[in-house]
Amino acid sequence: MADTQNASAEALIKSEDPKHPANLICSLCRQFYTFGWVTGTGGGISIRHEDHVFLAPSGVEKELMQPENIFVMDWASKEYIRRPLALKPSACTPLFLAAFTQRDARACIHTHSQWAVLVTLLCETGQQGPDPGVFAMNKIEQIKGISRGGAGSMEVAEGGRKLGNLGYFDTMQIPIIENTAHEEDLRESLEEAIVKWPETCAVLVKRHGVYVWGKNVTQAKTQAESLDYLFQLAVEMHKLGLKWVS
Amino acid sequence: MADTQNASAEALIKSEDPKHPANLICSLCRQFYTFGWVTGTGGGISIRHEDHVFLAPSGVEKELMQPENIFVMDWASKEYIRRPLALKPSACTPLFLAAFTQRDARACIHTHSQWAVLVTLLCETGQQGPDPGVFAMNKIEQIKGISRGGAGSMEVAEGGRKLGNLGYFDTMQIPIIENTAHEEDLRESLEEAIVKWPETCAVLVKRHGVYVWGKNVTQAKTQAESLDYLFQLAVEMHKLGLKWVS
Amino acid sequence: MADTQNASAEALIKSEDPKHPANLICSLCRQFYTFGWVTGTGGGISIRHEDHVFLAPSGVEKELMQPENIFVMDWASKEYIRRPLALKPSACTPLFLAAFTQRDARACIHTHSQWAVLVTLLCETGQQGPDPGVFAMNKIEQIKGISRGGAGSMEVAEGGRKLGNLGYFDTMQIPIIENTAHEEDLRESLEEAIVKWPETCAVLVKRHGVYVWGKNVTQAKTQAESLDYLFQLAVEMHKLGLKWVS
Amino acid sequence: MADTQNASAEALIKSEDPKHPANLICSLCRQFYTFGWVTGTGGGISIRHEDHVFLAPSGVEKELMQPENIFVMDWASKEYIRRPLALKPSACTPLFLAAFTQRDARACIHTHSQWAVLVTLLCETGQQGPDPGVFAMNKIEQIKGISRGGAGSMEVAEGGRKLGNLGYFDTMQIPIIENTAHEEDLRESLEEAIVKWPETCAVLVKRHGVYVWGKNVTQAKTQAESLDYLFQLAVEMHKLGLKWVS
Repeated sequence: MADTQNASAEALIKSEDPKHPANLICSLCRQFYTFGWVTGTGGGISIRHEDHVFLAPSGVEKELMQPENIFVMDWASKEYIRRPLALKPSACTPLFLAAFTQRDARACIHTHSQWAVLVTLLCETGQQGPDPGVFAMNKIEQIKGISRGGAGSMEVAEGGRKLGNLGYFDTMQIPIIENTAHEEDLRESLEEAIVKWPETCAVLVKRHGVYVWGKNVTQAKTQAESLDYLFQLAVEMHKLGLKWVS
Repeated sequence: MADTQNASAEALIKSEDPKHPANLICSLCRQFYTFGWVTGTGGGISIRHEDHVFLAPSGVEKELMQPENIFVMDWASKEYIRRPLALKPSACTPLFLAAFTQRDARACIHTHSQWAVLVTLLCETGQQGPDPGVFAMNKIEQIKGISRGGAGSMEVAEGGRKLGNLGYFDTMQIPIIENTAHEEDLRESLEEAIVKWPETCAVLVKRHGVYVWGKNVTQAKTQAESLDYLFQLAVEMHKLGLKWVS
Repeated sequence: MADTQNASAEALIKSEDPKHPANLICSLCRQFYTFGWVTGTGGGISIRHEDHVFLAPSGVEKELMQPENIFVMDWASKEYIRRPLALKPSACTPLFLAAFTQRDARACIHTHSQWAVLVTLLCETGQQGPDPGVFAMNKIEQIKGISRGGAGSMEVAEGGRKLGNLGYFDTMQIPIIENTAHEEDLRESLEEAIVKWPETCAVLVKRHGVYVWGKNVTQAKTQAESLDYLFQLAVEMHKLGLKWVS
Repeated sequence: MADTQNASAEALIKSEDPKHPANLICSLCRQFYTFGWVTGTGGGISIRHEDHVFLAPSGVEKELMQPENIFVMDWASKEYIRRPLALKPSACTPLFLAAFTQRDARACIHTHSQWAVLVTLLCETGQQGPDPGVFAMNKIEQIKGISRGGAGSMEVAEGGRKLGNLGYFDTMQIPIIENTAHEEDLRESLEEAIVKWPETCAVLVKRHGVYVWGKNVTQAKTQAESLDYLFQLAVEMHKLGLKWVS
């Protein structure tokens, strides 16, 4: 494993291109900070690009993150080929890898958005539906911003049905898994949820937040935005006595 | 139809002037993004300027949009004279054109604001008024920011009554139309609402958002702001048990 | 009356100093826009500086305002010595002058903040107190940001009692006046409220917003901020079943 | 005591390094202003660095503060070695010093966040728990952003138990003290709370705000963020009928 003194490892995170994964992770984290998604070092984003996975470190103020802080993993071997001294890899790493491996996703975002947390708590009450393990909503235009078939890399599903995004009259369903004491212990139940819900592009974690992925950074980001919009709307609807599914 | 390699088509969207429609659409979309109006590629704005209509493309992150992404339509023929390769025109296009054609508007804004969505849901409950097809409010100062007579291009109405903006004691009424599976299918009901409500400068779409227009960009934008303020206030008033019309 | 072609009138609003009133009005309006205080051209600020009163025009997008848009009035004669062609003076002008004349204030801010509007509506319900004509609150630390004795220019009141800011155990009282169809018609009732409430630094206008003044721009601005904080807190407290005065 | 004309005192607050305490206090205050933590000159931050304590002055608009406005105290003697003419030291000074002295903290943040104020009011109602003198919450992921053992400078507690941050299943407890007429009079009860609650990194002040400290600026800031997130979440949970401890 290379340390940060290694020149070839350094080249992995040095670029003038704002769209280079190491730069993009930093600029997106600054943006997510203003959304309340990565408060107090929580949350983050990982990008899989060509043969590498780019990961934010654990416990760093996300709005201040620099390319120098980024871990780089070799996709084939899952070994770190760049590891910033004095930093630890994010505890979210196995969860990001689950989305990359199981859904062929290229970007995965984890937020601690309060709207996500509140939605999981409201599902627990049974007031919006019988199943505390799924957040469901329909007949809201913004649902059309959410893809069917996970990362959306498959254009056609097994039965030949055309994939794409959800329609206005479809019911969006996002599975909710139980939280665990240690974030890395979420991997097993997250992977189960991904298997059990082949169309979902996100998994909510009770009292914790949400994981959202996409076939590229743009899809992951716009889906994370659309979902956060829907979570917030759902909380407001609940306060006003309105049902999420009609 | 010209493609983007055509030099004269390119000139349509190249300008150093920040008030040029191609630049203005981009800067306004960045601003609207911070308002939560165009989350996850939703919403947008179109400007009719001289012989052309400038339109944002479909499915692009609105806060990142560049003049290069803009479609330009010839007003007389309604044909695209600039069409960015690899992008699709916005599904809102027929709706923007309805406002331009029927009201002689020069700018039309479409938002997915949650306040607009919530207002349509609250109207559906019948708790604020008998008609789920209209949002009505009076005796709020900000109503004075809304014009009578649509795009406001006519200074005097048929009966000789002076037009202008609503007064404090007037009741503002914004029609609400049903949403459809596909955005372009809203055109017919939007056009009907425009005919039925000759004084309105906006149409709400149930569980979707709002279309707002004006005789110029400034009027469209300030009316969209005033309406969003009123939608938000209406939701808060409802939470507090207060009536929108008194 | 000079028009804007007059060089000496132009000099009144041209300065490199960001604290010059013509520049300060513009930068503060940009800031107030982000607070939701001047949505859709509503609200504004006026500064009295030496022999002049600087006023924003009517109906201009406040976040885009430029020094060139500013009206300048001669304090002694109350006549405009700079008047931008094609713009109208703000309808708030007589209300700003009331604060300057009756309280020797040097800056007055008018906001359409939704929190101010909601507070006036909640006072109307009688649920927080018997008098719909006054917003009262006590035992909240932020009240200490509000001055006694209006613009605070007098250090000692008639009876020799020391003036200054409200204390934590004092009850802050802000009078509420009825709104009128035309903003300039508020002058009489605003002046009456100023006389009747000699300690207030602000007057709420029902279903409209608030006027706040100070002995200088800093005091007007910090008081407007503290009041808006208290209005927002009051609305949230009401939602939670908490009393404003205890 | 030096005045600001003293060159060596000036050197204490002049630096090109954005991480120098005098610069950091200013940039953090600008950031806190956008969070609503230091509205209307309220709230602030103090940093203890090497032999000095850097303190913001009283009554200054925090978002406009400059290094020139900063007071510097000698840690050993507790005497000011830099004192800006015409400014007064913050009334929070004895409270910041309490955290530095009793917990060996190096940074302490004071906010007037409305969420902190509302949480103290809700605790008073007894609806979320029997003790109005403590805010308690558990099973929310963000709790893991809060340290045990105050400033966290001790790695092992007396009984040999490993310290660090709270776990997901731990119950976070933040003491609440009564507010006083004058901020400096909070010192005694704040010090008592620090003694009584050896694991807390924060003390809430009823109807006022919160004090949060850390072993360095980063820990103080990220804990202040995590706590504010939890206070906001607690208020929203209360509105939705959800319990803070389960």
